[in-house]
Amino acid sequence: MTESLRIVVVAPDLAVEDPGDEHAISQAERSRSLRIGLLENGFNLVATLPADVFLAERLGQLQPDLIIVDAESEARDALEHVVMATREARRPIVMFTNDSDTSHVHDAVAAGVTAYIVAGLSAQRIRPILDVAMARFRHEEHLRRALADAQSELRERKVIDRAKGLLMARQQLTEQAAYDKLRRAAMDKGLRVAEVAQRMLDVADLLG
Amino acid sequence: MTESLRIVVVAPDLAVEDPGDEHAISQAERSRSLRIGLLENGFNLVATLPADVFLAERLGQLQPDLIIVDAESEARDALEHVVMATREARRPIVMFTNDSDTSHVHDAVAAGVTAYIVAGLSAQRIRPILDVAMARFRHEEHLRRALADAQSELRERKVIDRAKGLLMARQQLTEQAAYDKLRRAAMDKGLRVAEVAQRMLDVADLLG
Repeated sequence: MTESLRIVVVAPDLAVEDPGDEHAISQAERSRSLRIGLLENGFNLVATLPADVFLAERLGQLQPDLIIVDAESEARDALEHVVMATREARRPIVMFTNDSDTSHVHDAVAAGVTAYIVAGLSAQRIRPILDVAMARFRHEEHLRRALADAQSELRERKVIDRAKGLLMARQQLTEQAAYDKLRRAAMDKGLRVAEVAQRMLDVADLLG
Repeated sequence: MTESLRIVVVAPDLAVEDPGDEHAISQAERSRSLRIGLLENGFNLVATLPADVFLAERLGQLQPDLIIVDAESEARDALEHVVMATREARRPIVMFTNDSDTSHVHDAVAAGVTAYIVAGLSAQRIRPILDVAMARFRHEEHLRRALADAQSELRERKVIDRAKGLLMARQQLTEQAAYDKLRRAAMDKGLRVAEVAQRMLDVADLLG
């Protein structure tokens, strides 16, 4: 369910200074209608923030479930700020833009932008887009975590194997005896076997 | 570049049989305008196919770069056919639908649907959507392949370790000697070390 999603909208400051500036007026209008659409759909719109240097800190405080980047134009700049701000704590990012220049899409997707919707959507169409964005984000996080786990297990096995090999060669131990030695050391120090193995390898040259 | 993408549209048969059926007429109209939009945008629309039991075979023959599912309603059914048809050879799937019931989105996303656009988009907005869909698909395929590689390397290491352990125990070999034995056997048979290790483990019980 997306109803209770805590959403932060990142949008440029839309104060219209010149009442004759039609572009600024239409941009402000569209941004307002997006926010109205979110509220009418029952989403929890916790903040609307400009894409500035304080963004990372504010997102850290607010911990939204999803970030909507509403960038009429200058999509690339706004996105860059949001991507920087969510590098440590990844979050689904939905981008509404009229900027049909997609030359930066590859970077955006690699950086975690989950949906990229060319603007002009009516309010009742927001919900399915956010549903899909959440589903995609979770799916990719799942893949990403599985990959990180597999890679770290692989790395650990390699480190342990190298450490075992070193012990076997230096102390004429069997594989089992070498492993037992590492495991006992790990238990004594309250470390994981891979950590002890890594430390051993780190200083093996020093010990000569 | 998405210009030269070979696209297959999967859409229901839109022959309007009853000239008074306004729903059928508007559905046919929308589907036509999507196809016109694709052609006008310079995409290579290689076929429009119904979501039936022949779909898998036809997709196999056509080998499109991207599949657009254009399902006014009955989105779930159409999607199921397409997902089944692309299970062996994954392809980016973009879904245009008016069906705002997203209860099946999780399945769709896990099955490889890359974008899910609620219908009603004008022709000039198609290109950025397809750009993003392609970028997302490639990004996810990259993740997926990295995961498969890491998991298979891990599996192989475990199999080789178990086989080495077995040889060391049975034949009082050192680890190095056990590994050398496996490697020689692999070279003799033209197999990979992990394959020889797996075969050895498979029949170890038989050999007693």
